[in-house]
Amino acid sequence: MNMPVNMPVNMPVAPALSTRGPVLIVGTGLLGTSLALALSAARIEVQLADTSPTSLALARDMGAGRVRTSGDAEPRIVVVATPPDVTAGVVLRELDAHPGAVVTDVASVKDSVAAEVRAHGGDSARRYVGSHPMAGRERSGAVAADSDLFVGRPWVIVGEWADPDSVLRIRNLAVDVGATPVLMTAAEHDAAVAAVSHVPQLLSSLLAARLEELPESALALAGQGLRDTTRIAASDPRLWSAIIVGNAEPVAELLRAVRTDLDLLIEGIAPALLPSAPSERSFPGGADAIIPGAVGAITDVMSRGNTGRARIPGKHGGAPRRYAEVQVLVPDSAGELGRLFSDVGAAGVNIEDFSLEHSPGQRAGLAMLSVLPAAAQGLQEALGAQGWRVVVG
Amino acid sequence: MNMPVNMPVNMPVAPALSTRGPVLIVGTGLLGTSLALALSAARIEVQLADTSPTSLALARDMGAGRVRTSGDAEPRIVVVATPPDVTAGVVLRELDAHPGAVVTDVASVKDSVAAEVRAHGGDSARRYVGSHPMAGRERSGAVAADSDLFVGRPWVIVGEWADPDSVLRIRNLAVDVGATPVLMTAAEHDAAVAAVSHVPQLLSSLLAARLEELPESALALAGQGLRDTTRIAASDPRLWSAIIVGNAEPVAELLRAVRTDLDLLIEGIAPALLPSAPSERSFPGGADAIIPGAVGAITDVMSRGNTGRARIPGKHGGAPRRYAEVQVLVPDSAGELGRLFSDVGAAGVNIEDFSLEHSPGQRAGLAMLSVLPAAAQGLQEALGAQGWRVVVG
Repeated sequence: MNMPVNMPVNMPVAPALSTRGPVLIVGTGLLGTSLALALSAARIEVQLADTSPTSLALARDMGAGRVRTSGDAEPRIVVVATPPDVTAGVVLRELDAHPGAVVTDVASVKDSVAAEVRAHGGDSARRYVGSHPMAGRERSGAVAADSDLFVGRPWVIVGEWADPDSVLRIRNLAVDVGATPVLMTAAEHDAAVAAVSHVPQLLSSLLAARLEELPESALALAGQGLRDTTRIAASDPRLWSAIIVGNAEPVAELLRAVRTDLDLLIEGIAPALLPSAPSERSFPGGADAIIPGAVGAITDVMSRGNTGRARIPGKHGGAPRRYAEVQVLVPDSAGELGRLFSDVGAAGVNIEDFSLEHSPGQRAGLAMLSVLPAAAQGLQEALGAQGWRVVVG
Repeated sequence: MNMPVNMPVNMPVAPALSTRGPVLIVGTGLLGTSLALALSAARIEVQLADTSPTSLALARDMGAGRVRTSGDAEPRIVVVATPPDVTAGVVLRELDAHPGAVVTDVASVKDSVAAEVRAHGGDSARRYVGSHPMAGRERSGAVAADSDLFVGRPWVIVGEWADPDSVLRIRNLAVDVGATPVLMTAAEHDAAVAAVSHVPQLLSSLLAARLEELPESALALAGQGLRDTTRIAASDPRLWSAIIVGNAEPVAELLRAVRTDLDLLIEGIAPALLPSAPSERSFPGGADAIIPGAVGAITDVMSRGNTGRARIPGKHGGAPRRYAEVQVLVPDSAGELGRLFSDVGAAGVNIEDFSLEHSPGQRAGLAMLSVLPAAAQGLQEALGAQGWRVVVG
């Protein structure tokens, strides 16, 4: 369920929906501090808590809110933004400490926390709602915090066991910081992030691990494909271990499915290793006729990959659209990309996606501009008229 | 071996090194036609041949060269740019037909072609040199051809069996079209492309194949990580089957190594599925203390992935550099990226890498500008002064 929020960027959110009481943020890392900054910017009272006085002081000094003290007003919402391996314990503690509050957490795995809260007994579970704001950065800590971190991002809310009013309170919190609330069950959420986040992370790492021993001369042949597929292999192993251990079952199930496909692929390719007469391998009629097992295995996994890839939604969350790609050679010097985008802007064309491709030794970049198909021809002509080297794909 | 070519972009290459006789291009697809266009632009005489009259006429009409006829002068170089499964046969035919020529091919796998040529006997092998220009596009055919396709790209040359003069002739050909010649043995080349190209392709497809059956609500949570890791899963299964079958042994060896790592990962994660008391799983001391096998297995593969990823060279082929990243929120309307890059250009800063991040429902993009660390602070201030929402990572 996807409820889009239409909100102009860079405008204060008003009126805030969750103002009828303070919000206590427990944990002033990247997510906690970003959330506190966003709520403070919306003039919502924020109380801060953290086991690290240094982190707490930093968040306070950044304008995230004031440090909670024992005499403070009771919070209406408590957000637990601690490392994932301690989240459930802190959630239970906060539920007990603030009996009038709805408690949520921002851990990226939801079922295990929910199971512990529900096992805790009492009415606690009715006041617990899980959150997973799909926002993050490659850096961590309060110092990387940003009040715009949640703007336009999905914010998953799980709370099939909770009071409807509790769910509504957290939904309003998400809207107040510019996020798009998405309601799911905890199990649906965990299966989803296993597929769109955890398993991609592990496969990227498995692939990059193969580069550890590769000669430098081989690495020099790396192109954009390798760069893209291994970008997230630079992620923090410690943080991710905690995340993946917390979602072990859905991740292991998917990895086993990958292993099944991988086994079929390896077995399929193996017959190609059998010696065959050179003349059989090299003339028309081709590989299909000679090693149908290998071609079949590769074609099968690649065709399914085509289908899967095509299902990833476009940037606005709608059905996947096929964009036309306009490729432009850009000299590698200051201002050239600026000149390019000025010319694109002057042509009145909106860029749907953009990437810049380089290869070792290259002194020029290949800019790939994705635009609506109807706009490609006009853009090509406009850029050509400005002296750019352009090819429409 | 990496010999950089310093050549201004968009300038004719002069004097051409391979002018002392015509170059015959056999196969007028993307690579053959692009090469012919580049050679013709350098005023080198190009003869064209193709089994498809349509494709041949198209290449000729694009200005790639003239169609070879029986009375033509003998070529000094023959470039075989046919589909990979027929390459070796065509190379042998051209070696016999043109006893004064050096014959090269552009297939992306080299050892199998070389083995057939060497098995052919006579002096043929001394006149055969394998090429692999590391240039390509997602589209194929003469219509997608581009005379700049090879500019600044590595062009691998294999010919440990060939006459030094034959190797030099092909090296000059590569330089004439603006490529960077890289000398390797055929086995080194094939092992390299298995690791940097073929296995990344298959793992991306294996990952994307898992999305085939995923609910749409789960796909709506996809972020940039999934987009990056599955981008090349959109590649053509038929073309890739032929490539991978031709490089079966190095690919299968790497896939088996991936499977070993995957097995360890699955076995490592499995103990996390054993039931444990909630209190053990949720309090400080954390996951490390409870499920060391799972954490160890995940941390191991991810740490090795960190190392491997960090070894991929930077865009200019030098040692990997760490760039500072400046992140800017960009409203989603025509001209905004242009305004951003104008302001970046006005600040005199060169963009080393660029990406644009979107999430479903989002009406603004997060532009990530990679710049030299020394330039980040100044760029942040300059963009802030122009009213941009900026965060330096």
